[in-house]
Amino acid sequence: MDKLHVSIVGGSGYTGSELLRLLVNHPHIEIDQVTSRQDDGKNITEIFPFLPKKIKNKFVHPDNVSFEQSDLIFFATPNGIAMNFAEMLVSKGKRLIDLAADFRIKNIPLWEQWYGMKHACPKLVETAVYGLSELKKNEIKDAKIIANPGCYPTAIQLALYPLLNKKIINEQTIIIDAKSGISGAGKKNDDNLLMAEAYDNFNAYSVQGHRHEPEIEENLKEITNTKDIKALFVPHLIPMVRGIYATIYVDLNKDLSEDELDSIYSQAYDQSIFVHFMGVNKIPKTKMVRGSNQCRISCFNRDKKLIILSTIDNLVKGAAGQAIQNLNIMFNFQEEAGLNYIPLNP
Amino acid sequence: MDKLHVSIVGGSGYTGSELLRLLVNHPHIEIDQVTSRQDDGKNITEIFPFLPKKIKNKFVHPDNVSFEQSDLIFFATPNGIAMNFAEMLVSKGKRLIDLAADFRIKNIPLWEQWYGMKHACPKLVETAVYGLSELKKNEIKDAKIIANPGCYPTAIQLALYPLLNKKIINEQTIIIDAKSGISGAGKKNDDNLLMAEAYDNFNAYSVQGHRHEPEIEENLKEITNTKDIKALFVPHLIPMVRGIYATIYVDLNKDLSEDELDSIYSQAYDQSIFVHFMGVNKIPKTKMVRGSNQCRISCFNRDKKLIILSTIDNLVKGAAGQAIQNLNIMFNFQEEAGLNYIPLNP
Amino acid sequence: MDKLHVSIVGGSGYTGSELLRLLVNHPHIEIDQVTSRQDDGKNITEIFPFLPKKIKNKFVHPDNVSFEQSDLIFFATPNGIAMNFAEMLVSKGKRLIDLAADFRIKNIPLWEQWYGMKHACPKLVETAVYGLSELKKNEIKDAKIIANPGCYPTAIQLALYPLLNKKIINEQTIIIDAKSGISGAGKKNDDNLLMAEAYDNFNAYSVQGHRHEPEIEENLKEITNTKDIKALFVPHLIPMVRGIYATIYVDLNKDLSEDELDSIYSQAYDQSIFVHFMGVNKIPKTKMVRGSNQCRISCFNRDKKLIILSTIDNLVKGAAGQAIQNLNIMFNFQEEAGLNYIPLNP
Amino acid sequence: MDKLHVSIVGGSGYTGSELLRLLVNHPHIEIDQVTSRQDDGKNITEIFPFLPKKIKNKFVHPDNVSFEQSDLIFFATPNGIAMNFAEMLVSKGKRLIDLAADFRIKNIPLWEQWYGMKHACPKLVETAVYGLSELKKNEIKDAKIIANPGCYPTAIQLALYPLLNKKIINEQTIIIDAKSGISGAGKKNDDNLLMAEAYDNFNAYSVQGHRHEPEIEENLKEITNTKDIKALFVPHLIPMVRGIYATIYVDLNKDLSEDELDSIYSQAYDQSIFVHFMGVNKIPKTKMVRGSNQCRISCFNRDKKLIILSTIDNLVKGAAGQAIQNLNIMFNFQEEAGLNYIPLNP
Repeated sequence: MDKLHVSIVGGSGYTGSELLRLLVNHPHIEIDQVTSRQDDGKNITEIFPFLPKKIKNKFVHPDNVSFEQSDLIFFATPNGIAMNFAEMLVSKGKRLIDLAADFRIKNIPLWEQWYGMKHACPKLVETAVYGLSELKKNEIKDAKIIANPGCYPTAIQLALYPLLNKKIINEQTIIIDAKSGISGAGKKNDDNLLMAEAYDNFNAYSVQGHRHEPEIEENLKEITNTKDIKALFVPHLIPMVRGIYATIYVDLNKDLSEDELDSIYSQAYDQSIFVHFMGVNKIPKTKMVRGSNQCRISCFNRDKKLIILSTIDNLVKGAAGQAIQNLNIMFNFQEEAGLNYIPLNP
Repeated sequence: MDKLHVSIVGGSGYTGSELLRLLVNHPHIEIDQVTSRQDDGKNITEIFPFLPKKIKNKFVHPDNVSFEQSDLIFFATPNGIAMNFAEMLVSKGKRLIDLAADFRIKNIPLWEQWYGMKHACPKLVETAVYGLSELKKNEIKDAKIIANPGCYPTAIQLALYPLLNKKIINEQTIIIDAKSGISGAGKKNDDNLLMAEAYDNFNAYSVQGHRHEPEIEENLKEITNTKDIKALFVPHLIPMVRGIYATIYVDLNKDLSEDELDSIYSQAYDQSIFVHFMGVNKIPKTKMVRGSNQCRISCFNRDKKLIILSTIDNLVKGAAGQAIQNLNIMFNFQEEAGLNYIPLNP
Repeated sequence: MDKLHVSIVGGSGYTGSELLRLLVNHPHIEIDQVTSRQDDGKNITEIFPFLPKKIKNKFVHPDNVSFEQSDLIFFATPNGIAMNFAEMLVSKGKRLIDLAADFRIKNIPLWEQWYGMKHACPKLVETAVYGLSELKKNEIKDAKIIANPGCYPTAIQLALYPLLNKKIINEQTIIIDAKSGISGAGKKNDDNLLMAEAYDNFNAYSVQGHRHEPEIEENLKEITNTKDIKALFVPHLIPMVRGIYATIYVDLNKDLSEDELDSIYSQAYDQSIFVHFMGVNKIPKTKMVRGSNQCRISCFNRDKKLIILSTIDNLVKGAAGQAIQNLNIMFNFQEEAGLNYIPLNP
Repeated sequence: MDKLHVSIVGGSGYTGSELLRLLVNHPHIEIDQVTSRQDDGKNITEIFPFLPKKIKNKFVHPDNVSFEQSDLIFFATPNGIAMNFAEMLVSKGKRLIDLAADFRIKNIPLWEQWYGMKHACPKLVETAVYGLSELKKNEIKDAKIIANPGCYPTAIQLALYPLLNKKIINEQTIIIDAKSGISGAGKKNDDNLLMAEAYDNFNAYSVQGHRHEPEIEENLKEITNTKDIKALFVPHLIPMVRGIYATIYVDLNKDLSEDELDSIYSQAYDQSIFVHFMGVNKIPKTKMVRGSNQCRISCFNRDKKLIILSTIDNLVKGAAGQAIQNLNIMFNFQEEAGLNYIPLNP
């Protein structure tokens, strides 16, 4: 079989390098173009010496790049970039996976309010598919544009979906206390991201409101066909690099036995390769998924207050891994192609 | 002025060594006896080489110790030890600060249920004072026995007290998502406490119920004169050593302006040396209090859902520091004597 | 092709779980028996929830295990175990890879002095092959017993071999300042391995002498056909989990240009899949190899004092990964089968 | 006694904030001016919320600052700043402690070569005193300008001084393998200092040569009256924030007993409050000195190859603490004034 040619726009950040880490071992992929403004012309392995010598590509300046040979283009760019190239690329028959936020919210005024810019292609947003792989598989198959979900929203929606879908929780009183390793903030100049600041420290941030809150609410409503969802979301920074951990507090509409809870989650994810419900009263840990495309979920019932725990690696299932999972669905590859990494433990 | 003679039972754990770290520089204290079963006869500075050479004491076996010369005895022991010595010591006119849980809960059956043992001196529990320094100052002054609060309960009660005291929140819907550095678990043989396991990892624990939950509820009720309080408490382990961070979700009974919130907390803590309300919409970080007896609190109002953030160093304000603060109050020393450490930053 | 049946004795430690992590994806391997005294009868995935559900094996008690179906047995046990089973297993035609030290040193009195026990099968030690894969490939092919090298010795010998082999350094004045992540110490009850102790700390250990020093000297002599080698070895503990970093100081017999140095290392490792000489004056980092079977080497020439830097993941190339590489060589599989993990970065 | 008025130029970096942390509790000091270009006009406690509310100072722009009221000025600036202000300040009778490198090397061409700039006041360099407190006490007393030593040089020179002073080691074959926490690199925009890069990683740097090498050689020669010293120095980055650890390899001129070694170091440091020789064959750890002005030293004799271990906190004894120790000596205060912090442990 001919290999699929894929390109990456924005290859020098953490989602870019994670795409490269995973694509290198993908059996059906050939890496075509990888852009980088700052590392233009350099060997990828010079900039990322952890990658194997067999990668021969050089970074290309985004102004000089051509995607003629590419079947699919990943955007591992900041928000507001992919939307400027989408129309041109789609018109040429290319398919597109945006790992940033440009296509994640259908409500354009809401998006513009949270992201502080005018959207460049509102029409295309309508056609884009929200790439939460397990819950949107059929639409992903034929999508031209995939809006790859945010890291927090992935862990959180996978945890809440089975409950909201069954209409067994109060959809107005959801509280999400979420925690992330620091790679979720990207590779940028910000004193708070310095080792000397972030090591041996823990704190909340964006408590007044975070862009992932409207993304979670809008997509969960759509996926679970719920009229209104209100989810209070507070993120925190963990002094480590990879990992999302969501502790979610919801009110059960009626009491449920362990077996009932188990069955609700099992039905939802028993066919899933990557999402694993550990059982009621089990403790997921970020280390159980580190470096892998796995999601681990469990729940605890305390007097009709249900506590759901969900963990993923933000750079894999929360970004590059899910993007490749979506690609696999789009091109009819095995869903785990290139994604069979076992978590690194200890 | 003659120095106060204090002894420490259980000097080789983390609260014991932290008491030593702080007492060494206390202007009015002389360290009398320090017990250790395993390090009997050894120089304290051999076991804790971070302590200064001027400490000449040797560890004494608990079976051979005499407290004749001691004015006050700290118990930095596991739960269930102090209660066996309390009557004897009190009868000899000694005063006592228990850093474990033996005297923290007045409701004896409740205590026995959570701690899985029979209480040895229920009568003395009645007379013991819960040593949350800022909120029980008058009772602490004359106490014979101080029940030094748990680390989580200290951070959490200081955060909730002003609101509950003013009756402005729903006392039935409190959700506490708390996080702790690993020293809170003590120095013991448990695979989960190994560096190889705990580093680069994050997880919840005791989600089905933690002993600090009844402690928080009982004492907050008493301190704020509230009939009933229900606080759902979920602790997590942060991959670092020191620090408690509590993110608390409560429902406001009516909407409050920033000024009103500011004024509620300011009234409560403006006279406090150690508890500092940072203001509405400010972000406390564990590093702002590391190694110090400080507590930093802030809050965010999101549509009548109030999010309160509170942080302390679990070994200082959450254990040894608050114990010394209580001693200072009991003996009429300056409240900050021995406690003027500035947090270690970065 | 029929799959090779392999068993693991001592499956619950870090080298055991790492063997499992890597073998799960090995295309030619079926895991037969995995022993554990403490977890006898439990599902492997219950004890190691990071492993995928497809592993159906249960732990077997070492007293009840049978290796009838096994072609090869890994010993991921403490020192002094494998030597008691070797004769019996070899006599039944089994092949054996010992990840502990029982077969690493040919000089039995020297071994007995360092390891403080009598050797159970000195005769078999003679026939065992020291499994430094790149440097002993031919002997490994036919070996019945592989002495899998220690983690430090692997990083250090790969770094020194090309120089000693070419007789261009003084073999009497080698100084090795080595550093290791804490997983190298194994999973055991030792206060020094607790997170609260080891986090945010750095120190040397075993400065008076470490068992890896005679291993390095003896095997380097044999491999490079050098009469005498003296290598002063001082290990340190890095506050992280995985990674060996060796900084080696040697005296060049004559000055060498960058090109000459480059050529010496290139000749040695250009055919190697896993050992990669980065070039003169390049900086390897432990993160470049984390989770992978890679070794990264570089050197700096400062006035005939050559500084060599070498890094591996102690659990992969320093233990389980090299063991599987040896298995691949023994059974004529592709050398990288099951070992094509890209390092986890960041 | 009237308080001494001190100012800080460059108050927003790590040495600046560490000076503030320590000076706040100094009994004889009043903080006068603290400059910051970027935080001009802001409250110091807004920028450094870990500092106590009692600090009322605001940052002042360096262009607007006046030191009329200051007795002593600390320069916690990048290299090349203090030298431009030294003449003016000295001429006004001010005393000066430069925590950067401007006055550390007397050999001006050597300095200019390593620091890549022209020196602004070579004459003043001659009169400046190298502030290695324990070894230059008499000269420090009357100094107008103190060149506060670098962090590595402090740990290393304190370790080597007693041996070089007694002429018992080969001064030409010194090898220094040194390791530092990341705060030693300062607070600046550099990808290598990001948490996502530096956490869970270890590597050497500046292997081709580091500015601290000539500083060590020149000052050790002067202090120990040695004609020539050659010290090969290789620094490494530890994944933590604070702490220097030097492992030093030297050749003894003749064999020495433990008692002789002990006596050599004891003679050197028995009167010292901060430098503590732990004894032969003891293991210092960075955590034994963290947050304090302490230095811990030990040594191991292996066949006339002596291994010396030395550890300090780079921000305290390696920077701000030693600067204050020097101030205490200059103004005849108790040497430990403001410096009696016990190391933070665990």
